[in-house]
Amino acid sequence: MSEYLAPLKDMLFALDVVRQQTGIEQNETLAEFDSSFVAAVLEEAGKFARGVLAPLNAVGDVQGCRFDNGSVTTPDGWKNAFDQFNEGGWMGLAMSADFGGQQLPKFIAQPVNEMWLSANLAFVMFHALSQGCSEILSHFGTDAQKARYLEAIVSGRWTVAMALTEPNAGSDLAATTTKAVPQGDGTYRIKGQKIFITYGDHDLAENIVHLVLARTPDAPAGSRGISLFAVPKFRIEEDGSIGAFNDVACTGIEHKMGLHGSPTCSMSYGDNDDCIGELIGEENKGLMAMFVLMNEARLSTGIQGVGIGEMSYQHSLRYATERTQGSHYSSGQRVSIVEHPDVQRMLLSMHSRTVALRAIGYLIAALIDLSEHSTDKAEVKALRDRVALLTPIFKAFSTEEGNRMAGTCVQVYGGMGFVEETGVAQFMRDARIITIYEGTTGIQARDLVFRKILADQGNALNTLLTDVRSSAERLGSRDQAALAVMAAQLTNACRATSSRIEALLGAGDDQQLRLHAGSVPLLEALGTLLCGWQLAEIAAYASDKIAANEDPVYHQNQIALAQFYFAHHLPGLFAQLETVACADAGLGSYQFVE
Amino acid sequence: MSEYLAPLKDMLFALDVVRQQTGIEQNETLAEFDSSFVAAVLEEAGKFARGVLAPLNAVGDVQGCRFDNGSVTTPDGWKNAFDQFNEGGWMGLAMSADFGGQQLPKFIAQPVNEMWLSANLAFVMFHALSQGCSEILSHFGTDAQKARYLEAIVSGRWTVAMALTEPNAGSDLAATTTKAVPQGDGTYRIKGQKIFITYGDHDLAENIVHLVLARTPDAPAGSRGISLFAVPKFRIEEDGSIGAFNDVACTGIEHKMGLHGSPTCSMSYGDNDDCIGELIGEENKGLMAMFVLMNEARLSTGIQGVGIGEMSYQHSLRYATERTQGSHYSSGQRVSIVEHPDVQRMLLSMHSRTVALRAIGYLIAALIDLSEHSTDKAEVKALRDRVALLTPIFKAFSTEEGNRMAGTCVQVYGGMGFVEETGVAQFMRDARIITIYEGTTGIQARDLVFRKILADQGNALNTLLTDVRSSAERLGSRDQAALAVMAAQLTNACRATSSRIEALLGAGDDQQLRLHAGSVPLLEALGTLLCGWQLAEIAAYASDKIAANEDPVYHQNQIALAQFYFAHHLPGLFAQLETVACADAGLGSYQFVE
Repeated sequence: MSEYLAPLKDMLFALDVVRQQTGIEQNETLAEFDSSFVAAVLEEAGKFARGVLAPLNAVGDVQGCRFDNGSVTTPDGWKNAFDQFNEGGWMGLAMSADFGGQQLPKFIAQPVNEMWLSANLAFVMFHALSQGCSEILSHFGTDAQKARYLEAIVSGRWTVAMALTEPNAGSDLAATTTKAVPQGDGTYRIKGQKIFITYGDHDLAENIVHLVLARTPDAPAGSRGISLFAVPKFRIEEDGSIGAFNDVACTGIEHKMGLHGSPTCSMSYGDNDDCIGELIGEENKGLMAMFVLMNEARLSTGIQGVGIGEMSYQHSLRYATERTQGSHYSSGQRVSIVEHPDVQRMLLSMHSRTVALRAIGYLIAALIDLSEHSTDKAEVKALRDRVALLTPIFKAFSTEEGNRMAGTCVQVYGGMGFVEETGVAQFMRDARIITIYEGTTGIQARDLVFRKILADQGNALNTLLTDVRSSAERLGSRDQAALAVMAAQLTNACRATSSRIEALLGAGDDQQLRLHAGSVPLLEALGTLLCGWQLAEIAAYASDKIAANEDPVYHQNQIALAQFYFAHHLPGLFAQLETVACADAGLGSYQFVE
Repeated sequence: MSEYLAPLKDMLFALDVVRQQTGIEQNETLAEFDSSFVAAVLEEAGKFARGVLAPLNAVGDVQGCRFDNGSVTTPDGWKNAFDQFNEGGWMGLAMSADFGGQQLPKFIAQPVNEMWLSANLAFVMFHALSQGCSEILSHFGTDAQKARYLEAIVSGRWTVAMALTEPNAGSDLAATTTKAVPQGDGTYRIKGQKIFITYGDHDLAENIVHLVLARTPDAPAGSRGISLFAVPKFRIEEDGSIGAFNDVACTGIEHKMGLHGSPTCSMSYGDNDDCIGELIGEENKGLMAMFVLMNEARLSTGIQGVGIGEMSYQHSLRYATERTQGSHYSSGQRVSIVEHPDVQRMLLSMHSRTVALRAIGYLIAALIDLSEHSTDKAEVKALRDRVALLTPIFKAFSTEEGNRMAGTCVQVYGGMGFVEETGVAQFMRDARIITIYEGTTGIQARDLVFRKILADQGNALNTLLTDVRSSAERLGSRDQAALAVMAAQLTNACRATSSRIEALLGAGDDQQLRLHAGSVPLLEALGTLLCGWQLAEIAAYASDKIAANEDPVYHQNQIALAQFYFAHHLPGLFAQLETVACADAGLGSYQFVE
């Protein structure tokens, strides 16, 4: 069904390439997490992913969650796996050591995260929520709040739900209507409805802490009047034990296309006017706090694209190797379909994209680590700017690619892929939400164009382009024809991107429609550029390894993946940039009539 | 849920553009089917699609078919709809008048077909099979066979199943192992297993005629040893009435990602050595006969891409119009999401592609009609060559686009699209098979590159390119800036395509890997070119209408659609052609290891 073998070698290789680019080795705190330490962690995580999580993936899809009498029952085996997950210390892997976590850097946590996401995406949805909440509390919580929540979250005794979306608001948080009325004792009475709440209710943990966006009575309208509240399902007594029910009711779960094992809940807070929450951070600054969680979630969601890509490739390769059909195009022999060039094209298309996206995801994680462990203010700012620029691109592009790869996987399986029993249709169904939740592709693209490029006068992007050009130069300097070709292609891609960005920066008010309509195509172009960049780094690194005669087959394959990507995917960048230049064509004059 | 309103205006407009291109009006037989006649037929069909078929679409998805004790039960309402379909004469719409059909030309039948496919794809799968079988019998059947089968098929008393695929053969028909042993009385005893047989068993009709590919005892190996047999589920008595069970057993149905209402059967023929078939056409010429059906099926499957695109657009537009969320980018007002440029981008992306693909599909239908009603041998050859070239491009490209559009529709719906109740997830799940059945995209691309281009020395393609260039010239000659821009873009696209094709024609034996690996990218490029071509025709036609002050809003919209496509999709053609030139990059050196 949906077996999973953690690609340890590819992950460690990606981390080596990232180490080389970022100078993690020079950071005192991070340097201690050397390759052999990381390998040991990943190996253990790989065993857990393969042995415990992957076998439950299809179970969760077939059974789904049940909703009866106001409570949610997870699929068979979910509770046991959850307990093992916590006992293994996986929940707190990257959380604060002060509260029982292992506080590993993100550049290790993200490969581990990738394994969970590949092996059983529906199951592990609670993990990013707990991780994000621990970040929020670390940034904005009082000491009392940290003490109250963090140990329980780190250990997995309690889980976290993120209650943003309201029935009529969707992605538009400014339209939040849930109310929070101060009680005079420092607490607030919460009342409102939320939908699409992942793991809003379940039977895995003894309590569920809802992070609820709501408005206090005198709050200003719009997004500047939203506050963040911690609203546990059961109240928490002074001694930290579980108290009375806090009027946090699940009113139903969604019947979804995929992620059947992950309960998506409609929640009603304060039906009996008895729902109490406590403010996290300052009043009316709720969105700022929530953005901390959302940035974490965007990185993690981008990794979901990688995880789906890896599953798609692994399964396709296995099937293509085992499935004998048709004759070889040159020998005429009856062969496995892995011998057919068009099948190879699909396999390398999935694999090269997964390898590139993985490198971007791990790179972002490493840059966040560096920004948290650097003492140089200018460096911290530069790192944060880079992360802020890369995150929306990675989130949106990786999830779009994840969807495309899941579709390609079904194509490799042919008719068998359409049949549910083979398990690959599930990848496609599960993946369909990842371009939507945590901010749709359109929302990421708007963030990219307007906040990360235009508001910044293109500075962060130009710095990035300088780095990409340097990578191209280093690749070209290796004096090998195949690498030089790629170096030239990447330099061209930078040039085309630069000149398009220059035009964008000079766009007048009359070009706003064009900017908006071209935002997703621009994001796609930049996503492709980032992939090309990382594959150039990978090819350069691999060529050094070949020169040193280290595992030449593996490293030659890495170069081949880069060559494939440059031939099959990089040309799309130029097409997307063309579109950006005239993205409003037809839009202004079209009259939408049903 | 899944409402459907037949786009009568768009369909009639597409037919007008096709009429103008093909000269149907000059053909004596075809000219009588004038626009007002066609409009009347389409209007009736539209009522049936909306009133009877569309309401059952979600029912079929939710209930699916049931398999008990060797027989298949279709979803509630299916049988009633089937009877109404036949009573309305829809089954025999394009079948022989000699046997009760209405024998309408394909350029009318395909718009009608599109309606069925939009409204309820799973239900109407039996229709293309009956249509294809009637073509086979018309071409290859004896008079006795025609008499035996056709009236019953045309009236819908009996349906047809197409039994090609075997458990270990997939698309590889040469590997067929089903046996057919002559009985000395002109009949054959059939024995073998087939899988993925659409409507192989069901409870709709009184008999099911299986067209089975099998080998006679002395048949040569491979594809030259395959014969075609008609194998009814129940034997047919001399007087045409239904006789004994013919040992045609359904052994199970597939649990699929989509098309739940269409039973996909595993069949076993002759378990008790009592399955009798009769030869259709000559022994060992079975594939040739089956190709007649498959060509019909390829066109119809391409139309499925159009049908899915239309549903995706209709639903997205309705949802985007009704759903209020977010603020307008320039006015700052709270608006329906149809006002957001990125949503408009997605809407026009779906609509422009659907409009273009529709024109291609109807054009192919009209060309087939002309080839069947022309007496000029050279003209018939030219028409057939054009159809042979266009068919694999249309089948593969339209179905790939159909899948992409169904994905875009879910994106417009956001989280609501992931929830099954809104009905649009079903479009995506249903559509996932259309790039696979009736020959995968890879198989269409191989047919295109090796049979339709290289074996033909590029003649048919060069003739096509000449026509596309003429369309561009006509568009450019209208002396309007917007049209001239598109004309120049299309001319460029032709130039780039020509020079790439020239290189392909000169490719040596050492470039076979490149040709194979580049076949799908080339097909995608040519698909894009065809869409650009038809949109150029549409824009030119619309501009004439505007000049004549006929329905200027509608016709201006058609020009806007063309402009949008040229900005957002045509640039992809150049990227795909780049890829074709180096499609083997990395492939030759990569070593596939699990």
